[in-house]
Amino acid sequence: MRLRLTPRNASFFDLLAESASHLVRGAALLAELLGADKEDRKAIATKLREAEHDADEATHTIMRNLNQTFVTPFDRDDIYGLASRLDDCMDAMEEAGDLVVLYELGVLPELIIKQVDVLQRCAELTADAMPRLRSMKNLTEYWVEINRLENEGDRTYRRLVAELFNDGLEPIQAMKLKDVVDTLEAAADSFERVANTVETIALKES
Amino acid sequence: MRLRLTPRNASFFDLLAESASHLVRGAALLAELLGADKEDRKAIATKLREAEHDADEATHTIMRNLNQTFVTPFDRDDIYGLASRLDDCMDAMEEAGDLVVLYELGVLPELIIKQVDVLQRCAELTADAMPRLRSMKNLTEYWVEINRLENEGDRTYRRLVAELFNDGLEPIQAMKLKDVVDTLEAAADSFERVANTVETIALKES
Amino acid sequence: MRLRLTPRNASFFDLLAESASHLVRGAALLAELLGADKEDRKAIATKLREAEHDADEATHTIMRNLNQTFVTPFDRDDIYGLASRLDDCMDAMEEAGDLVVLYELGVLPELIIKQVDVLQRCAELTADAMPRLRSMKNLTEYWVEINRLENEGDRTYRRLVAELFNDGLEPIQAMKLKDVVDTLEAAADSFERVANTVETIALKES
Repeated sequence: MRLRLTPRNASFFDLLAESASHLVRGAALLAELLGADKEDRKAIATKLREAEHDADEATHTIMRNLNQTFVTPFDRDDIYGLASRLDDCMDAMEEAGDLVVLYELGVLPELIIKQVDVLQRCAELTADAMPRLRSMKNLTEYWVEINRLENEGDRTYRRLVAELFNDGLEPIQAMKLKDVVDTLEAAADSFERVANTVETIALKES
Repeated sequence: MRLRLTPRNASFFDLLAESASHLVRGAALLAELLGADKEDRKAIATKLREAEHDADEATHTIMRNLNQTFVTPFDRDDIYGLASRLDDCMDAMEEAGDLVVLYELGVLPELIIKQVDVLQRCAELTADAMPRLRSMKNLTEYWVEINRLENEGDRTYRRLVAELFNDGLEPIQAMKLKDVVDTLEAAADSFERVANTVETIALKES
Repeated sequence: MRLRLTPRNASFFDLLAESASHLVRGAALLAELLGADKEDRKAIATKLREAEHDADEATHTIMRNLNQTFVTPFDRDDIYGLASRLDDCMDAMEEAGDLVVLYELGVLPELIIKQVDVLQRCAELTADAMPRLRSMKNLTEYWVEINRLENEGDRTYRRLVAELFNDGLEPIQAMKLKDVVDTLEAAADSFERVANTVETIALKES
């Protein structure tokens, strides 16, 4: 229970919200890429990489401001952690899209599409939650829902990998698909870590 | 070296000890599952999932109490971190058991059984150590022993993977087994992270 | 902006620098091992393991000193975190070397050699940076360059894995090589985490 003797600096909230808004765009591009024909994917992967660069810029702006700002709305470490973890989400989504292109994969299993649906929902919830950091109100529903989605995603993930292994795929093909599926699961884990970081911040500020 | 002006709240220690006791139960069920015949494993996996749910409940109780308690026996962040990492141990053990069932594996290599022996020993040591957080005494032997076990487990792990790759297994079978072995290794790493967290807390409190 | 009422303890800087110097030696041995003939690798792997033991010793000395020192030059947690992450770099490099021997691999793909070049450069930059923690000056160039190298390494990594999967390798051979390549990528990630930790410390101390 810290005393607050200083006015809160608003701009970090705007920057975190901007960073999260790139995730919504990234997740939508990833969904588009996975559903596209093989020959159309490269162009979408380029757009996804651009979204990742924009997210990087937003992260660097947060870090630069942290360096130059005396008063931060909550612990510097926590802003740093939150910005880094938002960045991890984008990195994993960009990587998954890139792998689909690099591995020259064809039509993807239905359950992979479901994994990306979960990521899109996570991105939207995260973008909605960031502005609420200002008041620290109504955040519980956000992290509870992210945790629920991550658990659901986890079950989908395991069924999907079992399917890849049990369905008589050619081994190298199974390895390629597992790598994509693992990277999508890492993206879901990153969204959960963002939510856990928000929960930790809320605990401290309460 | 913080001054302690407030009485310590005992219940967090009880809750952490309870959480660790679920790990002992989980590790025993995992050992039973791996040693069982293929057709008996599903029923044991259900019990393992129940243990994981109970552990989740214990973790959530800790988090809820953190939210509602003004004075905590040590830093909120550290209690949060410790509870999360105990939960990671259970998650990895439950996942390993589930994968063995989902991948429809038969008799498992001898060295996998050895990996689970290490996990059982880690779970027991962790459950024994949690009540000692109250006095912060006699914890060094705990984290030293966990680190020793994890190093031993690491050597077993590498030999085991080399064996899977060098012994002429069918590729998909090697991939399935490697996935189980990796998940068991992740469980051992999680026990080490619990021990490292306890060590960090002890450093701060000393 | 903490007040500093106490003299700074120099020896932690020396110990962190020593720890980083083992990484330079380890990365050089790893490069030697990967470029060597199959029959010469075992002897180099033994030297790499010795470097890893020496690094472990340095880490333990830091931890012991943390335990016994009242005043530390910066937060105990941060020294602990930095020492642990330096240790992670060495662990991953030693593991990569060990896997090459255990998997009985022959001549390695050109791009793997490039991955290790990046690690050698990271180790040198890290060893150069550690003494500058004393003054907290001129560290920005270090973490910017590590992040640049890690991004470059990331691109190499993805191309390399795509090459393993697309070039008609025998599946088990592809799995072995991917495991080595993943472990080298984990080493690069660990160097990045060291740099991120230094950045966080610099932010707090600024």
